[in-house]
Amino acid sequence: MADQLTADSEYTDAELELDLRWWAAANYLTVAQIYLQDNSLLREPLRPEHIKPRLLGHWGTSPGLSMIYTLLNRHIRRTGSDWLYLTGPGHGGPALVASTYLEGTYSEVYPDVSPDAAGIHRLCRQFSTPGGIPSHVSVQTPGSIHEGGELGYALAHAAGAAFDHPDLLVACVIGDGEAETGPLSGSWKLPAFLDPARDGAVVPILHLNGAKIAGPTVYGRSRDTDIEAFLTGQGWAPILVEGDDPHTVFRELESALGVAHREITRIQGAARAGETPDHYRWPAIVLRTPKGWTGPHIVDGKLVEGTFRSHQVPLSGVRTNEAHLHQLEQWLRSYGPDTLFDENGALAPELAALAPEGDKRMGSSPYANGGRLRAELPIPDLSRYEVEIEKPGAAFHETTRVLGELMRDLYRETTTEDGGGTFRLFCPDETNSNRLGAVFEATDRCWQLPTTEYDEALSPHGRVMEVLSEHLCEGWLEGYLLTGRHGIFASYEAFAMVAASMIIQHTKWLQHATELPWRAPVSSLNILLTSTCWRNDHNGFSHQGPGMIDSVTLLAPDVVRVWLPPDSNTLLSISDHCLRSTDRVNLIVVDKQPHLQYLTLAEANEHCAAGASVWQWAGTEETVGGDGPDVVLAAAGDVPTQELLAAAQLLRDWTPDLVTRVVNVVDLMGLLPPADHPHGFAEEKFAELFTEDTDVIFAFHGYSRAVHELLHGRPDPGRFHVRGFSEQGTTTTPFDMVVLNRMSRYHLVIEALRRSRRAPDGAEELAAHCRDQLERHRTYVVEHLEDMPEVRDWVWS
Amino acid sequence: MADQLTADSEYTDAELELDLRWWAAANYLTVAQIYLQDNSLLREPLRPEHIKPRLLGHWGTSPGLSMIYTLLNRHIRRTGSDWLYLTGPGHGGPALVASTYLEGTYSEVYPDVSPDAAGIHRLCRQFSTPGGIPSHVSVQTPGSIHEGGELGYALAHAAGAAFDHPDLLVACVIGDGEAETGPLSGSWKLPAFLDPARDGAVVPILHLNGAKIAGPTVYGRSRDTDIEAFLTGQGWAPILVEGDDPHTVFRELESALGVAHREITRIQGAARAGETPDHYRWPAIVLRTPKGWTGPHIVDGKLVEGTFRSHQVPLSGVRTNEAHLHQLEQWLRSYGPDTLFDENGALAPELAALAPEGDKRMGSSPYANGGRLRAELPIPDLSRYEVEIEKPGAAFHETTRVLGELMRDLYRETTTEDGGGTFRLFCPDETNSNRLGAVFEATDRCWQLPTTEYDEALSPHGRVMEVLSEHLCEGWLEGYLLTGRHGIFASYEAFAMVAASMIIQHTKWLQHATELPWRAPVSSLNILLTSTCWRNDHNGFSHQGPGMIDSVTLLAPDVVRVWLPPDSNTLLSISDHCLRSTDRVNLIVVDKQPHLQYLTLAEANEHCAAGASVWQWAGTEETVGGDGPDVVLAAAGDVPTQELLAAAQLLRDWTPDLVTRVVNVVDLMGLLPPADHPHGFAEEKFAELFTEDTDVIFAFHGYSRAVHELLHGRPDPGRFHVRGFSEQGTTTTPFDMVVLNRMSRYHLVIEALRRSRRAPDGAEELAAHCRDQLERHRTYVVEHLEDMPEVRDWVWS
Repeated sequence: MADQLTADSEYTDAELELDLRWWAAANYLTVAQIYLQDNSLLREPLRPEHIKPRLLGHWGTSPGLSMIYTLLNRHIRRTGSDWLYLTGPGHGGPALVASTYLEGTYSEVYPDVSPDAAGIHRLCRQFSTPGGIPSHVSVQTPGSIHEGGELGYALAHAAGAAFDHPDLLVACVIGDGEAETGPLSGSWKLPAFLDPARDGAVVPILHLNGAKIAGPTVYGRSRDTDIEAFLTGQGWAPILVEGDDPHTVFRELESALGVAHREITRIQGAARAGETPDHYRWPAIVLRTPKGWTGPHIVDGKLVEGTFRSHQVPLSGVRTNEAHLHQLEQWLRSYGPDTLFDENGALAPELAALAPEGDKRMGSSPYANGGRLRAELPIPDLSRYEVEIEKPGAAFHETTRVLGELMRDLYRETTTEDGGGTFRLFCPDETNSNRLGAVFEATDRCWQLPTTEYDEALSPHGRVMEVLSEHLCEGWLEGYLLTGRHGIFASYEAFAMVAASMIIQHTKWLQHATELPWRAPVSSLNILLTSTCWRNDHNGFSHQGPGMIDSVTLLAPDVVRVWLPPDSNTLLSISDHCLRSTDRVNLIVVDKQPHLQYLTLAEANEHCAAGASVWQWAGTEETVGGDGPDVVLAAAGDVPTQELLAAAQLLRDWTPDLVTRVVNVVDLMGLLPPADHPHGFAEEKFAELFTEDTDVIFAFHGYSRAVHELLHGRPDPGRFHVRGFSEQGTTTTPFDMVVLNRMSRYHLVIEALRRSRRAPDGAEELAAHCRDQLERHRTYVVEHLEDMPEVRDWVWS
Repeated sequence: MADQLTADSEYTDAELELDLRWWAAANYLTVAQIYLQDNSLLREPLRPEHIKPRLLGHWGTSPGLSMIYTLLNRHIRRTGSDWLYLTGPGHGGPALVASTYLEGTYSEVYPDVSPDAAGIHRLCRQFSTPGGIPSHVSVQTPGSIHEGGELGYALAHAAGAAFDHPDLLVACVIGDGEAETGPLSGSWKLPAFLDPARDGAVVPILHLNGAKIAGPTVYGRSRDTDIEAFLTGQGWAPILVEGDDPHTVFRELESALGVAHREITRIQGAARAGETPDHYRWPAIVLRTPKGWTGPHIVDGKLVEGTFRSHQVPLSGVRTNEAHLHQLEQWLRSYGPDTLFDENGALAPELAALAPEGDKRMGSSPYANGGRLRAELPIPDLSRYEVEIEKPGAAFHETTRVLGELMRDLYRETTTEDGGGTFRLFCPDETNSNRLGAVFEATDRCWQLPTTEYDEALSPHGRVMEVLSEHLCEGWLEGYLLTGRHGIFASYEAFAMVAASMIIQHTKWLQHATELPWRAPVSSLNILLTSTCWRNDHNGFSHQGPGMIDSVTLLAPDVVRVWLPPDSNTLLSISDHCLRSTDRVNLIVVDKQPHLQYLTLAEANEHCAAGASVWQWAGTEETVGGDGPDVVLAAAGDVPTQELLAAAQLLRDWTPDLVTRVVNVVDLMGLLPPADHPHGFAEEKFAELFTEDTDVIFAFHGYSRAVHELLHGRPDPGRFHVRGFSEQGTTTTPFDMVVLNRMSRYHLVIEALRRSRRAPDGAEELAAHCRDQLERHRTYVVEHLEDMPEVRDWVWS
């Protein structure tokens, strides 16, 4: 391939003319999709009734997107290389639909959009209409792993696709609007993390068409020298292509792609030969072309081409304004549809021949349908990591450590010969802090910048991705998963919210992906939320927020799962399940600090499979008997479980004839009615856990009303009395956190006694004891500044 | 001032020595806060019992922060200028507490932390302990408008502070960890938006100490030339200061501050003289100093100073490890506490004299306590904007237009002589799209880059802030508000989620700010969510997400308000309320497309003050009579209100003897029990609206369970049957959106008939009619691709 690339592969005039015709076909179909409900090949004069009643779509970015596609096709045919096309300006949907239609993929995926006049008719009608296809490049678009609706993530997704795919090239078109976002701005740091020896390459194409919806863009109005400095300073070697004459721009872009590819081959070649390519920079293309290029230049006396006015539908009055209709017909005919499609509506054979073949077509690339590449993870026998349990609640363990060990072995098991693999951990500089450091026994942090002798676990071929950006971690992982691999995003619980909108958008993607039979299932997005609100007592209020749970619970029930393992062995069991699952978003919420451990691995497996269980050993139903519990004590989450069990113990000790039942919930979505979520506990099971009428004291990891939200539709949900995080926090002790939020064992006991079916002997004394303990704590907090006692670990006092 | 600055203001050796001693005092107090619970002035040999039982705090960044503070103090005294200090690395809390203590502010704000030995004792004890102060620079820290817990927003906050404060200089320290985040990376675009004629200046100080918690930073390991290129390309003129010898670094940084200020004065001077400073670049300081500078160099044989190991507590075993204790004592004594503080513990007078005076002290700056600067907004008489209502629901109007007109006049009313003002709109390139374009009658978009003849409403002195970044819009506005001004952030509803974590953090800030009597109230954070899920039928699923509501409803009840105005006049009334309010986060959710209008301004004022009202004209209680309604029909939000009213009309027409009551909810938090939220409707009022036992059909703008979440604790909440957004969407028609989500008028009627206390005459016919209409719609959607009818506006069919 290198030979082909370094050869003077001349771009002949004949080739150029063919490419311009292909481009014309793509542009024609783009405009036709936006405007035409009939006469889609313009076989008769254009009349108002041919025009869709509602004009939706984005013309402005489309010609640029199609030009890039055209020239990548040529480049692929010439080099035989594998490219993925990432459309940052995803609102240019009709352009990508047109290109994948012209190359044949679209009709293969959607046979009713056939490669003929009937297919073109349908292609146009379905666009942006009810029951048809969305206006954006979306999950429905073949070849896409990226919806450009919420802007900012194109380059992060592209990077994730390239990691560990040494032979892949990712063309990532970045609109100059998107380039203003924070996440995209942060994504330019990729050269510090992309390993030329093991990863594929990303070719950013910063497309400066100069305008957003209603105004100019920062980079569009910046000088070339400034943009060059900006990119150079971050490890890129910019190649500028600019113009408004298609012949010139096509030649320059064709050449730029060749130059970029040759430089990538040189860099990767050196790295793969064991050399360290010193001070290299990755090629990046800066492409300045007019917005709405080849569209109406002036409409109603106002400049449209090259300005923000071409962003969406440049001629809006075509159904009623004869001049507009005429201008549209001129515009459409300027592409010469009769010369592009034969009488049956098939693309002219000399144009059809321009597309790459089979899976080399970007719309058909298996990289863009990652489930086709995905292999099951070889998950080791979990018993290797089991935490020994002599009896429940007898020993502390940093719960997340076992997951670090499991991931270490996943790295080992999946490492390929070239040093790559199919599993990665993404974490904002917190791998050790989150007690996942065992992974560094298997690999290092990934780092392409200089290292020093005092660095630890840091190397260019390391594959743990640490960057202080939740956006990058999440975006990289999404790209990695959508191209067929496995991974985990681990974050401080509070700061996962930074990426909440990305997680929501990914959930939306999966929701619609599962409706498309041609999309093979991809690995689930597994998110470990640790350093949780209850145990960020050292960092304070900004670090204390469990709201990520609330951001996902009401999204697609077929996608979303929320797991609250109370200890290490349940975390192992949950992780195993999540890592095997596909097309899900799994939130796993568990703290990293030393916590009490309860279940053996076998018990944990059973508990997790059930989603929630009665913990007989913690309640008094078996010992005291009676006709069901006087009160049910339930918990979801590690700290809540600990406080609840302490409450249960206090009740056992002080009110021994009270009948309590202790329930632990690990699968939060089980609380939803089964009609509303596939994991919703069946009615009978729900009643077996919580009865149908007994009051339930529920200690919950997150905001208490999040539980009430889920319980609606269950029998008498008003009997659930939930204690959870109530947005109280600061730098303090763990025990003070549960007191501040009124979820301490003492609060739970007082509430349980208040709600119990009957008042047991000893109730008054116990309530008094609890109030006394809380009073003692209050005194201790208020007075300690004057006379500071030992700040003891009150966790299990 | 310019004269003073351009003079060769020599930095004498004596001054340098004094500054180094001040710095030593700040470093001493920083270490003492982290370690000491007693013997805080080291008047006796250090013993284990002097050490806090739990060591919390971040040493690594602190000496750098204190050095900058020291030299800014000198600079302020020399120039008389006003500076604000933004601490990006907010975990360096003890450093800022130390500096504001040394300058005297701290004791003025917190008199029990007096400027003597007792005060130092308390200063140390309170740090990071229960009942004391948080470990971060936080709302409790005088001089701060920024909590650096969730990283990424320092430069955006700094920019917001500088807008329209022509005499203010903002020193913004950016850690090289934070510099990896997306939002911070995007913030470097500030020069495209900062007007030298009207705004103050921001001096970013990119502090490269090279390491994060556990590894190196991208910029820390990048070459100077790369960083220079990166910054230069974005409009900055970097000044590099590097070293590990304090004498050298102090001299260089002192000089750099002078150079920066002189250049700022030159740029602003030209601009304010009416010249256009061409191709200027704003000074930015790049400061490379060792992490944990002056701290333990080697601990247990491992290099600590200058590495990630100094991030938090570099000597962790001091209570039990004698060598560590000895090393700590050496470290503390290296600062010479006896030479810094007199026998009473007061700072040596020659050092105390180094602080600026009064409000020039950065801890005392009124800019950092913006409520002190805040003036009430001169809100015009709302009747100017009133939309005329002949009868309810008779005419369409783009609801948000009136807010654009109101904001236009707010711009006009608050414009100052220099072209600045105290009100701004922040919006990601959507001002026109969101129908707020009337503001451009008063001012332009702010734009410092080149303009062209076809630009619209774009100029260097424009004050509408449009940048395609929700992070920047939100962060700029936060900085603007916290320094005493007013504003609105307007966003597409779905993409406000991009900034959700910022909004949550700001809510936390306000929650604690209101507990501090010395913090004067600031204007509320007003967020307009428009282009809502129901009417993003053109953009598709990525643009359809009402989850922002769920991200805030469970936060501090004293801060959070969610408003769902159904029409223009209610929007006016709500906006007036929100713009007058302080210390709140107001979410206002309303769409921009043409919607039916219902209430006159007088009615709207009454309705909004009540939070929810019975709309008698829409129900049949008055006409049919009876003992209360058979069913209550409630709605919150514009589209739900429309569908609900259509349902009420169908019921009136087909089942005339059914007694319906129509309730409209505009203040969502009113649904919460009054014990849980100050706006929670009193029990009687709640019953007057919804009865205590009648079933309620509730059409809701957001996810339906979000309403159930709020209703817990209300009488028989199970009788509320909520229809809302159920995460169904695509590019389609508005009516198809309400059908897909089962909130259409027909769905509401069917549900109302099912839940009604009794079956009225005509019920079966009406239900059949509704099912038929839905079937017709389904047919229409499925079949239209074959035989496309007019896509009529089904909104009010």
